[in-house]
Amino acid sequence: MTHPTINRLQEVVAKGDDSQIADLLAEDVQFLPPTYWKTWTGRAPVAAILGHVGQVFSDFRYRRIMGNGNDWALEFQCKIGEFDAVGVDLITLNSHDLISHFEVVMRPYKSVGVLRAAIMERVTTDPRFLQYQKALS
Amino acid sequence: MTHPTINRLQEVVAKGDDSQIADLLAEDVQFLPPTYWKTWTGRAPVAAILGHVGQVFSDFRYRRIMGNGNDWALEFQCKIGEFDAVGVDLITLNSHDLISHFEVVMRPYKSVGVLRAAIMERVTTDPRFLQYQKALS
Repeated sequence: MTHPTINRLQEVVAKGDDSQIADLLAEDVQFLPPTYWKTWTGRAPVAAILGHVGQVFSDFRYRRIMGNGNDWALEFQCKIGEFDAVGVDLITLNSHDLISHFEVVMRPYKSVGVLRAAIMERVTTDPRFLQYQKALS
Repeated sequence: MTHPTINRLQEVVAKGDDSQIADLLAEDVQFLPPTYWKTWTGRAPVAAILGHVGQVFSDFRYRRIMGNGNDWALEFQCKIGEFDAVGVDLITLNSHDLISHFEVVMRPYKSVGVLRAAIMERVTTDPRFLQYQKALS
């Protein structure tokens, strides 16, 4: 009933392993983060961002997986430092069963603020993002 | 393929009409807002909160509706003042086809901060919430 790419995503996303995540992403994947109103485009930068996110989240667990075909909503819970959070990965697959659109919505406000600061610190100290900055629009 | 309660929710939630929303809620419904890590319990206070939210959101539109049975994810977009936002209503129905659990996750951080301030102002000036405060835990 669910989709092989969605099953695989559940296995790898919480590990924060860039290379395993990259295999599931379309070359022109778009990632829309919970933290700001911008879009990351491209497999390498999106895998890198998702890798950092996976390392900031702890006690990560997917809950309900809803959707069908190319449209999926993956409900999750996690901790960000000492703060609880709940979110949804909004996924669109392309005709090659790769993720073409990955949008993340979360609650509550305070936890997302902590995530925002943690990701900002990681991205500004990850030398790959000197190159990847142009993938952000 | 979708559920009558979910269809009806799409019709009424954007209008911010407390009484129409209340008809879809279980008496012991729990509402978990995007703005803070707390839970509102009970039909009247939850309908009142959802009414305020519907009045703060503008240009509200549901996008993909995913799920089946009692488990649903309703993707939406809206504006909060001048700011864009995307969110998901995470819904659980009970055996009477009423909403028993309603959790909202959103992006981005900045828009949720604006929502938080707007709802706080409305709740503190709505006399019903002198009574409803005990529904918040």
